[in-house]
Amino acid sequence: MQKGGRVRALILAGGSGTRFWPLSRKSRPKQLLALEGERTLLRDTLERLAPRIGPESVWICTTEALADAVRRDLPEVPPEQILSEPEGRNTAPAIAWAVRSMPEEARRDVVAVLPADHRMGDPAAFRDALERAARVVEREDRVMTLGVVPRWAETGYGYLELEPASGDNGEDGVRRVRRFVEKPSVENAERFVRSGNYLWNAGIFLFRGTTLLDIVAQLQPELARGLEEIAASPGRLRELYRRLPSDSIDYAIMEKLDGIATVPLDCGWSDLGSWEALDEVLPRDGQGNTGRGDTLAVDARGNLLFADKGTIAVLGVEDLVVVRTGDAVLVMPKSRSQEVRKIVNELTARGRGDLL
Amino acid sequence: MQKGGRVRALILAGGSGTRFWPLSRKSRPKQLLALEGERTLLRDTLERLAPRIGPESVWICTTEALADAVRRDLPEVPPEQILSEPEGRNTAPAIAWAVRSMPEEARRDVVAVLPADHRMGDPAAFRDALERAARVVEREDRVMTLGVVPRWAETGYGYLELEPASGDNGEDGVRRVRRFVEKPSVENAERFVRSGNYLWNAGIFLFRGTTLLDIVAQLQPELARGLEEIAASPGRLRELYRRLPSDSIDYAIMEKLDGIATVPLDCGWSDLGSWEALDEVLPRDGQGNTGRGDTLAVDARGNLLFADKGTIAVLGVEDLVVVRTGDAVLVMPKSRSQEVRKIVNELTARGRGDLL
Repeated sequence: MQKGGRVRALILAGGSGTRFWPLSRKSRPKQLLALEGERTLLRDTLERLAPRIGPESVWICTTEALADAVRRDLPEVPPEQILSEPEGRNTAPAIAWAVRSMPEEARRDVVAVLPADHRMGDPAAFRDALERAARVVEREDRVMTLGVVPRWAETGYGYLELEPASGDNGEDGVRRVRRFVEKPSVENAERFVRSGNYLWNAGIFLFRGTTLLDIVAQLQPELARGLEEIAASPGRLRELYRRLPSDSIDYAIMEKLDGIATVPLDCGWSDLGSWEALDEVLPRDGQGNTGRGDTLAVDARGNLLFADKGTIAVLGVEDLVVVRTGDAVLVMPKSRSQEVRKIVNELTARGRGDLL
Repeated sequence: MQKGGRVRALILAGGSGTRFWPLSRKSRPKQLLALEGERTLLRDTLERLAPRIGPESVWICTTEALADAVRRDLPEVPPEQILSEPEGRNTAPAIAWAVRSMPEEARRDVVAVLPADHRMGDPAAFRDALERAARVVEREDRVMTLGVVPRWAETGYGYLELEPASGDNGEDGVRRVRRFVEKPSVENAERFVRSGNYLWNAGIFLFRGTTLLDIVAQLQPELARGLEEIAASPGRLRELYRRLPSDSIDYAIMEKLDGIATVPLDCGWSDLGSWEALDEVLPRDGQGNTGRGDTLAVDARGNLLFADKGTIAVLGVEDLVVVRTGDAVLVMPKSRSQEVRKIVNELTARGRGDLL
């Protein structure tokens, strides 16, 4: 496929998840973890883009607490393009502020907004979908999203309901989005997946930066005013940013917008939302165990053994997650991976900032 | 009870067990571990004796590799009474050589041979039984053993079958031993415990040192000759010791000896033979978990959580052993504690001396 015009990437890297405790910490959230290989998820995100969008065209929106770590992880991204939110205000302010902070030339190009902590099993297929979507943005000045072809009836994700396929919008595999659907019930999720007419909302959006700002001005005038105040008085960023209305981009913009279209993404996507989700994408040994680092499994099946430091040995156990860091160990059934927060909450209640 | 004459203790501290891996290592076997409190099992053994047998009357038989650690652990024991075997040759040579190495004055006293790595829940009851046995040795120059009143039909221990109780040997609770029985079948173990006529063989013996050496000369003349050679040429210890016939004291002496008597021991004895055995004697929290160190259990029951270094957090698991050291973690069901050797064997096969 012929390359279109210049595309800029905005990577959202401000997340502070606790789902990978004890590996993830406040100072090292998921996007800064190397869960599969030697590279962090953030760096994977950058390198996956590189054949199409070089680091000089990448902006990162992160938090003040993480900015140094992000700069160290991505030295090839111009430091002035690594933006630090003074305070997390959810994705609508983050995206709109970051776009508003780009030089005017960049803002007029296609901007692709991407989470920093997702996995794409097939980066070439991902870039292909990104390219198709970018061409639609260039041609039609439309807001695009990349929706993931669902592989099971997940109730933890939002969905995109599509307009029925028709001849004229089939070019480049583009489909029109009828509506955004919040996390569904099991019954609805099953219906969605059976119908073939729904995609997972992966939080990937493409638009011209200037168009996005026009839309913000129209749909979220308070946010737009705040951004102009910040642009006029950059020294007051800290004071002004925390007054921006806190909202997700989905709720503040996308769900209210007509004419969004999508390119279905089928590239081994995972949000790596839990230790169990990581287990699903790691290679298995002969006993169905997955893992990293120095591990030893005797008569043990189906375990995720993640040794960040030191050695993990297991004997006679099944379907467990065992994680070892320099200071802590976590052991739980894989099926309870979603409940790691209970540990984090208990540590918080005990004032164990050293482990958070 | 009135104290008898001077009693010397010989603590056998040469063991190299692997049952407490990853806490136990070649350089730190079980007797040098602090499994319950702050003190090593060896130090517990010494302090338990102290009200009756002071450290100046204690001899330790250990290995060359462990001698420095033993000296550091027990600074109050005269260094010349800490004896190092050049090579492990089982308990018969170790005991006989250690007794032969004592000054003649000590050898003429009552000597109590004690393992370094057992637990006595009630030290006063233990000392009482020891005292009773020592008085019999003084009075009758008999070989005595302290047999443990069995609490279940254990197949992992040897047993002492007793002569039926009679009036004349009931003084001091002393019973005559009919025979030593090796590890029994389940059926026999159950029969033994039901009969009330059997005790567990805990490897605790008392005798006059000179009497033991006479018995060795009679029953194991080759061993006796070897000991005299060593006494005549201490510089050739290394060369001569490894030629001593390797045998257990039970097999070489006790099983062949008539007239052994015993004082039943009922003092919360445990050989702490596995992580599960340790779990049985540790205090439980409200969820039935036991442990040491910095641990956190959420919705988890019946686990042994042993954090020697760092933190252990568990969520939703039951009846597991989780052990964390500075360099390793072990996870297994409590019921498989006897199989830790499989891990050690695998590490050995992989050349992982750093973990052994």
